[in-house]
Amino acid sequence: MHFTSEQRLDDAVLERAFTLGEVPGILWTPTPTPTPTPVSVSAPAPAPLILLSPPPLGLRKAYPRLVARARQSAADGFATATIELPGSGDRPRLPGAERAFADLRRALDAGEPVSDETVDALILPLVDRAVPEWRTALDALLALPGIGGPVGYSGGVISIGTRLAVVEPRIEAAVLFAGSFIPRVMFEEARRVTIPLHVLLQWDDEGNDRQAALDLFDAFGSREKTLHANMGGHTGVPPYAGDAAARFFTRHLK
Amino acid sequence: MHFTSEQRLDDAVLERAFTLGEVPGILWTPTPTPTPTPVSVSAPAPAPLILLSPPPLGLRKAYPRLVARARQSAADGFATATIELPGSGDRPRLPGAERAFADLRRALDAGEPVSDETVDALILPLVDRAVPEWRTALDALLALPGIGGPVGYSGGVISIGTRLAVVEPRIEAAVLFAGSFIPRVMFEEARRVTIPLHVLLQWDDEGNDRQAALDLFDAFGSREKTLHANMGGHTGVPPYAGDAAARFFTRHLK
Repeated sequence: MHFTSEQRLDDAVLERAFTLGEVPGILWTPTPTPTPTPVSVSAPAPAPLILLSPPPLGLRKAYPRLVARARQSAADGFATATIELPGSGDRPRLPGAERAFADLRRALDAGEPVSDETVDALILPLVDRAVPEWRTALDALLALPGIGGPVGYSGGVISIGTRLAVVEPRIEAAVLFAGSFIPRVMFEEARRVTIPLHVLLQWDDEGNDRQAALDLFDAFGSREKTLHANMGGHTGVPPYAGDAAARFFTRHLK
Repeated sequence: MHFTSEQRLDDAVLERAFTLGEVPGILWTPTPTPTPTPVSVSAPAPAPLILLSPPPLGLRKAYPRLVARARQSAADGFATATIELPGSGDRPRLPGAERAFADLRRALDAGEPVSDETVDALILPLVDRAVPEWRTALDALLALPGIGGPVGYSGGVISIGTRLAVVEPRIEAAVLFAGSFIPRVMFEEARRVTIPLHVLLQWDDEGNDRQAALDLFDAFGSREKTLHANMGGHTGVPPYAGDAAARFFTRHLK
């Protein structure tokens, strides 16, 4: 992990851009308020970490949303980090992505249902590539001074979060956003998820299959799982829904 | 409205039992902390009011749940009040209720779906009788010193809350519990609801028709509506779900 730039946001958050191999990312850490008369020389306790998985727009476009969540999380005492998804931003397109997007567009333009094959071709290569990258990022992030567990995951592509929750035991709680196509195989993987989940669904998100989102919520094996459905379209998650997700992490990670 | 008894709970809440005609009820009001050196002789601002509609169990059985919510609401600065539903507690059974319950039991014992006729016979007479009683109670409660608007409604039988939200303009926000049978006509009434709604659904509530609850949520005409689905069975609403409902009222009524 190589840091490539750093800046302070409002004296409360340190933002550091990094690369991890060829993958760019950003780390935000809360900066302790300077104490005029230090009573102890011991280092502050390491901050618990939330992995902020971006929507597949590229980090540049997603930055305003990500930094808003990073600021809120820092105020709550969390470090947050994100990495560019495979095929997003300046990273090379995934093999088959162009054809899958063309098939998707054709189905949507024709008003036809999107086939399972197209959904698989769109999402599964992304999940297969992204999940090991997040785990590598987690290794690197937890090796940094000032960052510790427990680890939460908060993410945009619900299949990535589902797979990570199954395979990565260091993730102890997850906020998942139900707003993307879901390959059939993920309903099976969902049964093996056991960590506490907080699932956000935008009820009137026209590009999203609401029934598939409800079915996936139903499939999750977690004893504690909560679904928060709100109005406002795909990108219109209301501020109080973000606050509720933040409280979920505070309840489980602090 | 005649008060029949009063007691203080923990020095923070005044609980007063009352009757309104033949309908018994309970009013809980926050009691102001005594100020040792009063700086002003003006009366405290009237508390906003939340109508706590009980489940159809009778107030005696529902009391522990109701008083817990009344205490929380008082801590948040709200007065709360409840009245016995028609046909519950010591009130006379509703005409046709015995037959409707027998039909319900027969369907459930046979593992058959409950017919629309049975649901109508169970719920509609209750809604028709309860709604005017709640409105009369609201008149009496708002005439008391120390109680003012805005008014919220938090309730157990979702069809009563739906009808009240349509016909009673003084109710400005409602928390509805989706855990009872829903007559078909209520889906039409739901479209005419426009106030902010916070709907609680226990996802694995075996006695509840989850799909009907989701369809009713979809039908509500409110621009702001939120569905919180949780695990834990019919009576197992987790504490954090109650906290979220309390925050909804604070957001809308204060």
